Amino acid sequence: MKNDPAFRPLDPSQIARYADVATFMRTRRMSVGPGLDIALIGVPYDLGTNMRPGSRFGPAAVREASRVLRPFNPTTKIDPFALVNVADVGDAAVNSYERVKSIDLIQATFEEIHTVGAWPLAIGGDHTIPLPILRAIAKDRPVGLVQFDAHSDTLDEALGTRINHITTFRRAVEEELVDPKRMIQIGLRGTQYNESDTAFGHSVGMRVITFDEYEDLGRARVIKELVNVLGDGPTYISFDIDCLDAAAPWEPVCRKLVGSLHGTPR
Amino acid sequence: MKNDPAFRPLDPSQIARYADVATFMRTRRMSVGPGLDIALIGVPYDLGTNMRPGSRFGPAAVREASRVLRPFNPTTKIDPFALVNVADVGDAAVNSYERVKSIDLIQATFEEIHTVGAWPLAIGGDHTIPLPILRAIAKDRPVGLVQFDAHSDTLDEALGTRINHITTFRRAVEEELVDPKRMIQIGLRGTQYNESDTAFGHSVGMRVITFDEYEDLGRARVIKELVNVLGDGPTYISFDIDCLDAAAPWEPVCRKLVGSLHGTPR
Amino acid sequence: MKNDPAFRPLDPSQIARYADVATFMRTRRMSVGPGLDIALIGVPYDLGTNMRPGSRFGPAAVREASRVLRPFNPTTKIDPFALVNVADVGDAAVNSYERVKSIDLIQATFEEIHTVGAWPLAIGGDHTIPLPILRAIAKDRPVGLVQFDAHSDTLDEALGTRINHITTFRRAVEEELVDPKRMIQIGLRGTQYNESDTAFGHSVGMRVITFDEYEDLGRARVIKELVNVLGDGPTYISFDIDCLDAAAPWEPVCRKLVGSLHGTPR
Amino acid sequence: MKNDPAFRPLDPSQIARYADVATFMRTRRMSVGPGLDIALIGVPYDLGTNMRPGSRFGPAAVREASRVLRPFNPTTKIDPFALVNVADVGDAAVNSYERVKSIDLIQATFEEIHTVGAWPLAIGGDHTIPLPILRAIAKDRPVGLVQFDAHSDTLDEALGTRINHITTFRRAVEEELVDPKRMIQIGLRGTQYNESDTAFGHSVGMRVITFDEYEDLGRARVIKELVNVLGDGPTYISFDIDCLDAAAPWEPVCRKLVGSLHGTPR
Amino acid sequence: MKNDPAFRPLDPSQIARYADVATFMRTRRMSVGPGLDIALIGVPYDLGTNMRPGSRFGPAAVREASRVLRPFNPTTKIDPFALVNVADVGDAAVNSYERVKSIDLIQATFEEIHTVGAWPLAIGGDHTIPLPILRAIAKDRPVGLVQFDAHSDTLDEALGTRINHITTFRRAVEEELVDPKRMIQIGLRGTQYNESDTAFGHSVGMRVITFDEYEDLGRARVIKELVNVLGDGPTYISFDIDCLDAAAPWEPVCRKLVGSLHGTPR
Amino acid sequence: MKNDPAFRPLDPSQIARYADVATFMRTRRMSVGPGLDIALIGVPYDLGTNMRPGSRFGPAAVREASRVLRPFNPTTKIDPFALVNVADVGDAAVNSYERVKSIDLIQATFEEIHTVGAWPLAIGGDHTIPLPILRAIAKDRPVGLVQFDAHSDTLDEALGTRINHITTFRRAVEEELVDPKRMIQIGLRGTQYNESDTAFGHSVGMRVITFDEYEDLGRARVIKELVNVLGDGPTYISFDIDCLDAAAPWEPVCRKLVGSLHGTPR
Repeated sequence: MKNDPAFRPLDPSQIARYADVATFMRTRRMSVGPGLDIALIGVPYDLGTNMRPGSRFGPAAVREASRVLRPFNPTTKIDPFALVNVADVGDAAVNSYERVKSIDLIQATFEEIHTVGAWPLAIGGDHTIPLPILRAIAKDRPVGLVQFDAHSDTLDEALGTRINHITTFRRAVEEELVDPKRMIQIGLRGTQYNESDTAFGHSVGMRVITFDEYEDLGRARVIKELVNVLGDGPTYISFDIDCLDAAAPWEPVCRKLVGSLHGTPR
Repeated sequence: MKNDPAFRPLDPSQIARYADVATFMRTRRMSVGPGLDIALIGVPYDLGTNMRPGSRFGPAAVREASRVLRPFNPTTKIDPFALVNVADVGDAAVNSYERVKSIDLIQATFEEIHTVGAWPLAIGGDHTIPLPILRAIAKDRPVGLVQFDAHSDTLDEALGTRINHITTFRRAVEEELVDPKRMIQIGLRGTQYNESDTAFGHSVGMRVITFDEYEDLGRARVIKELVNVLGDGPTYISFDIDCLDAAAPWEPVCRKLVGSLHGTPR
Repeated sequence: MKNDPAFRPLDPSQIARYADVATFMRTRRMSVGPGLDIALIGVPYDLGTNMRPGSRFGPAAVREASRVLRPFNPTTKIDPFALVNVADVGDAAVNSYERVKSIDLIQATFEEIHTVGAWPLAIGGDHTIPLPILRAIAKDRPVGLVQFDAHSDTLDEALGTRINHITTFRRAVEEELVDPKRMIQIGLRGTQYNESDTAFGHSVGMRVITFDEYEDLGRARVIKELVNVLGDGPTYISFDIDCLDAAAPWEPVCRKLVGSLHGTPR
Repeated sequence: MKNDPAFRPLDPSQIARYADVATFMRTRRMSVGPGLDIALIGVPYDLGTNMRPGSRFGPAAVREASRVLRPFNPTTKIDPFALVNVADVGDAAVNSYERVKSIDLIQATFEEIHTVGAWPLAIGGDHTIPLPILRAIAKDRPVGLVQFDAHSDTLDEALGTRINHITTFRRAVEEELVDPKRMIQIGLRGTQYNESDTAFGHSVGMRVITFDEYEDLGRARVIKELVNVLGDGPTYISFDIDCLDAAAPWEPVCRKLVGSLHGTPR
Repeated sequence: MKNDPAFRPLDPSQIARYADVATFMRTRRMSVGPGLDIALIGVPYDLGTNMRPGSRFGPAAVREASRVLRPFNPTTKIDPFALVNVADVGDAAVNSYERVKSIDLIQATFEEIHTVGAWPLAIGGDHTIPLPILRAIAKDRPVGLVQFDAHSDTLDEALGTRINHITTFRRAVEEELVDPKRMIQIGLRGTQYNESDTAFGHSVGMRVITFDEYEDLGRARVIKELVNVLGDGPTYISFDIDCLDAAAPWEPVCRKLVGSLHGTPR
Repeated sequence: MKNDPAFRPLDPSQIARYADVATFMRTRRMSVGPGLDIALIGVPYDLGTNMRPGSRFGPAAVREASRVLRPFNPTTKIDPFALVNVADVGDAAVNSYERVKSIDLIQATFEEIHTVGAWPLAIGGDHTIPLPILRAIAKDRPVGLVQFDAHSDTLDEALGTRINHITTFRRAVEEELVDPKRMIQIGLRGTQYNESDTAFGHSVGMRVITFDEYEDLGRARVIKELVNVLGDGPTYISFDIDCLDAAAPWEPVCRKLVGSLHGTPR
């Protein structure tokens, strides 16, 4: 069943990279269903942000930008499309006017993916979205979690609301979707409201590596520690876009870390 | 009391146009209070839109852009700042996460302005905002209304919600904030969901001038008709930014129409 | 067979306008086949240009931009998707390195559409592409043609090549794909190499309306003349993007002209 | 001597429009000297502005943009390069730190052009630059002047300085470089400091046509009046970039007016 | 007197970060006066540059951008607004047309700040502005100086002028505003006119660390040396924007250096 | 003959950096001829690319951008213009419509430069252009080559064509223009079609240093190895623009490597 040719991305020798409808990495636009191993899915939701909206256009932008990606990763020596069935399953349902209702709609979409046994790879959207995703895929048992981010996103509430882009991982721990002992935050460097921004993470036992500590430890030791923290269980990885910084040598870090974590699903 | 020098905008011979904190037309940033005639106010709200958010940054952008405006209008021969007291009163309160609660917060801000007897000139923000503004200033008696817009914004609901940027003027009529017989829509030209988009306006007696009809009538006759429709009562004017069209000679139209309506408040 | 619900564009009450894979006007991405009435198709080809390449990205950009279009046209009072089956059939095949071979590949794609009896609505791409399209759909009999353009595109050759974006309509006439007596050019205003740029058109009997003549005649008389020139036969309409001009009231012109030509296919 | 092939612009059949060093309209970069009829010259000066600097980059930007111009004007049916010798003579000298000294340097450059009997066509630069140009070419006798502009630029001083972009034409009249009876301002529409902004022009007998009056008169009558005002003497034409307005049908106006004024130098 | 609540920045739980008039870090716009500890001040001056003007818009741009900053610095564990009274005091006076006179106006503004005992934190503006600032605050005794920059800015003159953005620190040393033995330049890497560009600094005993030397030494040793050079006296820190380089890991360097220098004023 | 003052770049004390026609580093625009040591030349060719065209505008953009460069390099302590005669010789001839014919035209231009004994420094254009350049200057004997690039560009063909931007260095080796034993590729990190993308390089003995290996080795060891691989013979250096990466500390690498290779031509 694996390696079904029906799942091969568009062949650039037949269809130019700039041609045809844009999908994630030029994979096929398919419905969620049997045979699917990895579901590339957009989550066009930005109602959880309190400063700059617009990440609702993130999935469309990433689809366009990903036209240039070739399938073979020169670091890992792996062409994932030759190993597993990958497809673009479109976007999670959202209601443009309803912050909380959309969270439920997103959860429902990911439950459908989880039910058929596929792994989701989600492109947001603001950083509220790990919550409905984890509710869909981690309700049986808490998962480990790697968070690349400039901020901790573990505050308790904002403007009287408890579900938004700065409370995500506190909710996830409280709802026992994430095991804080198997959670690691990497790269925190943003200014804070006060010292308590990061206090929750420390109090529940997350491993918090600020950008400054990252520089002191060096990449190799961070990777070793990351492997120790995560252990063997299932793990969710989340990149907040502000983990990237043009002035910091962060891109190769992400690349290497991802490389070191790389395995073959199922 | 009028013409209080404390209300004069920054003097460009003392402070360069590009200098100091940006306010609307370089007026003073003041609190709402006695003596104020015209309150320039931002409404940084875009939770009522279903496509492109970002108009929450509209007030900041207009403040910056308005640095270049000189006070004297060469068409009307009027320097409004020499006649009345104008100030920038900041922005209406909003809650970044709460679509409906923000509507109430906005209403409260405009009630405060209305209470001191000042006229508000609001810069949005999406086109939901006339609703809370009218709730604040027109609850005693319905007002007349001129709407420059590409769409009618008179639908009944969207995605199960009744307060958003495409239902504004239907709500305003239903709540008897606007007298539809004294309401005129100018420039409608956007594509519609179906024929019923504009049906409500016709059914309650609004005068609807599409862009095509505008071209057939010509500016002078439109202005005459506008004056007839509005009569003598108090009138609210609303510009949806999409009434502007780089390919259409619309800017002088707005300028002339505003010129012909121009009077002196109080 | 008409009005097959399978052909309805995405419903914005189910899928937000900014969500999911971008297609032309949010129609379905379908293969060419029976039942299809109008084929929206991209032609990502810019090898025929001698100045600015980049129109190969035109179809992708139009797909994204067309997310905002609602189905009902307020001028013509028509919702085309309720009358006929419309789909996005992807992009014509091209070879990124081969200027002439790509012309043949494009022709083949349009022959496939023509064979099933659908009408193509092509989004380019540079202005070479009407040639392969006309070769596919007009080889049985010459068609009439309306060309909105700043230039005539009727030169004989450029840099030793005879198939490129400035020779298109000369080739089309020479190959008897277009009946020059049923051809009208509207809006020519660009600078020319010399007087002969527009000479071919006049010599074979095209009706050439420069931008200046357009202004003198006025819209209504241009439309009347256009209808006279075209008569009753099948007609191809081509918009070169440089027919648009932010400083000229051209958009309503195109809109009205298209409105006046509007009919129901088949 | 006219029509010297050494002055022909670059031939696009030999050198692509996007290739080689950018000059005005792809003319040759030459020194000022005998045989030159029209000197295309940049004036990279923006020290006379009180709001947005940056027009010092204007000449470079126009050189790049003018690559696309073909030589033959379809309205006037004239290829100027076939009639007279045209060259790009580089930029006027300026001192980046010295507002007033630069004015003298600019004047000296234009005197050199005037001495050899060539006509200058200057690309600025802010609207201070007509003053040093007129000092160079009109010191023998005042010239007529057409000014396309949103503002009158006839104030007496700004921030204690008398040479800057808003006093230019007052200085030019005072210095008897311009005959105000043969001067016409077209398109004024910008907001003013007060009524006196335009008072000087009226007081000395300039013909001032505001944008509103332009719309009332219509293009043909404006051209007729313009011809009457200018009469037969030598005339300088100045376009302030803010005479253009994307929302106004101004571009064809300028084109037609220039067309109607067109003659053959010397 | 310290920690006066009247000086607290806008509270984001009351006023959204994107709302209201933009000030530096959302501090209050106040006049210079007693109680003020740190004066955030714009210096919208770019008449000292010889290439790209536009930094006159720097203060406005930084005010907008600084809306996103939260008050607590996670490296230093300090919320400066809880320790001292900080306010936005607007912009220094300038004359848009007068390069040298503006220098005097700027000096006067900073003398006013110095007189009330507040520390200025200035946002430019081009790199001429440290001169008038130092004239205001260092006339009693020379200060130490840290300069992050791509160029030395120690030339003697440019185009016959001695006050401009490339002579600033030579003037400051000559006028005994800076003690060159307590001055350190970090990050020089720009191309030079000739070897003498940096000769003055060496001749008077500045410590000059080029970008290349920085890389060889490493951050920790640079910080140690910086502390040695500066010793205990009062010190001015200047960042030229071109010290930043997207391709270089410079941002954490600045952050760490600033962190290590951090103290509590007064 | 060397150091001819006629070859000095424009003097910024006479002509401001933003003034006059843009040439590479403000050198003189000259014809290829005797006395010329280094020919700065544009190659406005992008017909060899299969994704983003537009590098045909590269030479014009680099000419504009290079206005800011001062002549003296602070790392190497060399002012090249004081040692050798450098000029901007314009752009290589190309035919905008002909991919392969243009390659021959480019070769002819570089043969002319080679014949007079000058060294070319070419600004592209896509990465096909090293092939015609090497055909012009390396036909007598193969040269060594340093390639900074994200991809190897050593594939055998693309879409049935053998001359394009991803086959360049395979063709150069096959045609014995490059000695693969004296060739080194630095920085490869892009995704690949499959493992064979880089196989050719390894098979013929190129030294291939991926970005990951670069990080492991460190700059100093890479430079040492680079010197070993190249030995003493003539060497060509090629920078593909995608070797640069805002997220990677690559700019100082290039700068240092170039510094270490620096010598004096002839």
